[in-house]
Amino acid sequence: MVASPGTMKPNFSLRLRVFNLNSWDIPYLSKHRADRIKRLGDFLNMESFDLALLEEVWSEQDFQGLRQKLAVPYPAAHYFRSGIIGSGLCVFSKHPIQEISQHVYTLNGYPYMIHHSDWFCGKAVGLLVLHLSGLVLNVYVTHLHAEYSRQKDVYLTHRVAQAWELAQFIHHTSKKADVVLLCGDLNMHPKDLGCRLLKEYTGLLDAYLKAQDFQGPEDGYTMVKQNCYVRQQDLSPFPFGIRIDYVLYKAVPGLYISCKTLKTTTGHHPHHGTPLSDHEALMATLCVRHGPPQQSPSPPHGPVEKSLLTRVLREARMELGLGIARARWWTTFAGYATGLGLLALVLLCVLAVGEGPSEVAMLLWSPSVGLALGAGAVFLFHMHETKGLCSIQAELQHALEKAKETQDLGPEPQLAPLPGQQEGDRDEEQ
Amino acid sequence: MVASPGTMKPNFSLRLRVFNLNSWDIPYLSKHRADRIKRLGDFLNMESFDLALLEEVWSEQDFQGLRQKLAVPYPAAHYFRSGIIGSGLCVFSKHPIQEISQHVYTLNGYPYMIHHSDWFCGKAVGLLVLHLSGLVLNVYVTHLHAEYSRQKDVYLTHRVAQAWELAQFIHHTSKKADVVLLCGDLNMHPKDLGCRLLKEYTGLLDAYLKAQDFQGPEDGYTMVKQNCYVRQQDLSPFPFGIRIDYVLYKAVPGLYISCKTLKTTTGHHPHHGTPLSDHEALMATLCVRHGPPQQSPSPPHGPVEKSLLTRVLREARMELGLGIARARWWTTFAGYATGLGLLALVLLCVLAVGEGPSEVAMLLWSPSVGLALGAGAVFLFHMHETKGLCSIQAELQHALEKAKETQDLGPEPQLAPLPGQQEGDRDEEQ
Repeated sequence: MVASPGTMKPNFSLRLRVFNLNSWDIPYLSKHRADRIKRLGDFLNMESFDLALLEEVWSEQDFQGLRQKLAVPYPAAHYFRSGIIGSGLCVFSKHPIQEISQHVYTLNGYPYMIHHSDWFCGKAVGLLVLHLSGLVLNVYVTHLHAEYSRQKDVYLTHRVAQAWELAQFIHHTSKKADVVLLCGDLNMHPKDLGCRLLKEYTGLLDAYLKAQDFQGPEDGYTMVKQNCYVRQQDLSPFPFGIRIDYVLYKAVPGLYISCKTLKTTTGHHPHHGTPLSDHEALMATLCVRHGPPQQSPSPPHGPVEKSLLTRVLREARMELGLGIARARWWTTFAGYATGLGLLALVLLCVLAVGEGPSEVAMLLWSPSVGLALGAGAVFLFHMHETKGLCSIQAELQHALEKAKETQDLGPEPQLAPLPGQQEGDRDEEQ
Repeated sequence: MVASPGTMKPNFSLRLRVFNLNSWDIPYLSKHRADRIKRLGDFLNMESFDLALLEEVWSEQDFQGLRQKLAVPYPAAHYFRSGIIGSGLCVFSKHPIQEISQHVYTLNGYPYMIHHSDWFCGKAVGLLVLHLSGLVLNVYVTHLHAEYSRQKDVYLTHRVAQAWELAQFIHHTSKKADVVLLCGDLNMHPKDLGCRLLKEYTGLLDAYLKAQDFQGPEDGYTMVKQNCYVRQQDLSPFPFGIRIDYVLYKAVPGLYISCKTLKTTTGHHPHHGTPLSDHEALMATLCVRHGPPQQSPSPPHGPVEKSLLTRVLREARMELGLGIARARWWTTFAGYATGLGLLALVLLCVLAVGEGPSEVAMLLWSPSVGLALGAGAVFLFHMHETKGLCSIQAELQHALEKAKETQDLGPEPQLAPLPGQQEGDRDEEQ
């Protein structure tokens, strides 16, 4: 049985060292893979974090290798399997894992965008429940859909939908958790819609913004130009770097959680020359303490219309609306194309029965079958996309109504419980 | 803010009237659909339950019609959208819905089993959070994969996997709920593996077994031969009927929940002649009270090996193991077939370039493309199935280890908190 925070002694303190890395472990495709995984294992072995959370470990064999290598400092480990290729998520823990679960995102790109391949992975959020020093700790690890073009981001709606599902999953599964920790590659910049939605809905705090001592690249970038594996053209709109990997946390009222230090690698291996991945590793030291509540650090909320939560829920609902319109357009288009393919097949059958020009019929048979089947598959896919987006939009609409009701009843518009007082808050990013 | 059970007065009592029906609302296919939906609406309007939970409402238009018709007695309603066709799940509530979420099952049959069509639906579990009389009530509604043949049930593994995901979803999302209610068409008989897994892991109790006053068909059957819409050949192994629709519930320790009455229709409309659906409707009156804990109703557990939970977890793990072996076999088979199709295409290309017999090449082109694409799709599908089954098997394995640890530490093997004392327990079914 886990003690509730109320029963713990006032001088209680829990220190938690967390490691997060998108490990860029893609068989046959990513450079120096075996060497990097070996060095990652050595580093994790040496540092002995409480938790090491990894994304993009696409090779289960590599996970099993790491598991063997890390068996002493991290006796508990889990690999989250999903989709066709996998979720790429795994975790190594110094402490026993009490419970495991996962949620695979409903929408994750398009199967015909083969060169982007996200659809073939089962992008997901993994959940581990740990019991530490009498506290229930819910640890989440995730990786959202990649952003291939900032100017024309065709996956924006799906990423916002994923951010909402992530927020919902955390909200519903962490109701009895004393401490919530989310690490991962969100593929979103700090001010992006999905990132704001996630933070406002769950009340999670950003370790980079809250760290008392931050050591790492300017603005906390987690993909930097100095990293030899980063393609410079991918960073072209942001020549110095981007911040898309996060450590986020919160604690129940009555517990204070603070980020003592956050270290981010700077394009090099922390101890050697070449980096561990094309992403930078995040290493956070969190401290959980117990004591009477202090003044809330949240800025005072303005009138109803200005509430951050209702605003971001409205924005997300609007983005979902645009996505639904696009999905419906594609469904209709693919429906007509399927009909055309079927019509062509019927005509070819009539021609064949009527002993018409058989060579023409044979030549057109394949394209007609291809059109009917291909467009049919696209039709079904976009039907599924529409249903998924409509479901999420309805949930957003409901959350918005409830948030408004809460605001009308009192001055506190946040759905999420207020996190404990944070120390050493850093300035908000621009 | 919701009061905790501990703060409520001892004479507190909550009465909850719940309606559940698989409504067999399939556009173009099910008989007397419009008339049945109209009569269902009239009945729900007249009876004014606290909650009406429906499955197989495949037409969103029918849901919207019911929503309009039931707006006064049931001001809150939600339709759960998912998959290509939908989940078919919806709910009408007399009380405001505080939160909404859903989980779509990872595995739900096979896309090439078009005549069974389950894959095209997004079979799911819907969650509603209600706040009633100071209690948090988590209401779940679900519909699992159909069983088309009891003798040769090719969907057994998927249904067990769904039962596990359902149990996990309830377990992780109901940790702060005072009362948990699950209604739906589980497509499982009471002693089926998935049903036992669900009950043992979550601690949910079966309203039919616990009802103080049961009125309905023999053995609580929810598909009976008297129902004119039931095809008698579907019931052939069970000539009198089967029980596959359930009302299950539990409450946190300190609260007592009991089923005062459970009424099940008997193949006829409760007030008129023709039935509302091919399934029978369940109408339960539940009573939640507050008071000191009474003696546990659970049977004493024997030695470690005999624990119901560990036994059922082992059985489920074994079933998943068989499913994984089958999925891997199909993956390999489809992989070879895809290779064969691609090889044929290469040969045809070589023939075409070498000016070989063009008519043969043209004739074989379509089947080769079809083989490569069709087998490729089957390959990808079974890769996905394998990943999904492996993920669930790993979760089962972990739960089994934890259940064993709990047993080793003490006499209480149940993961789920013990439900409150039940009154008027009925005998277990055979």
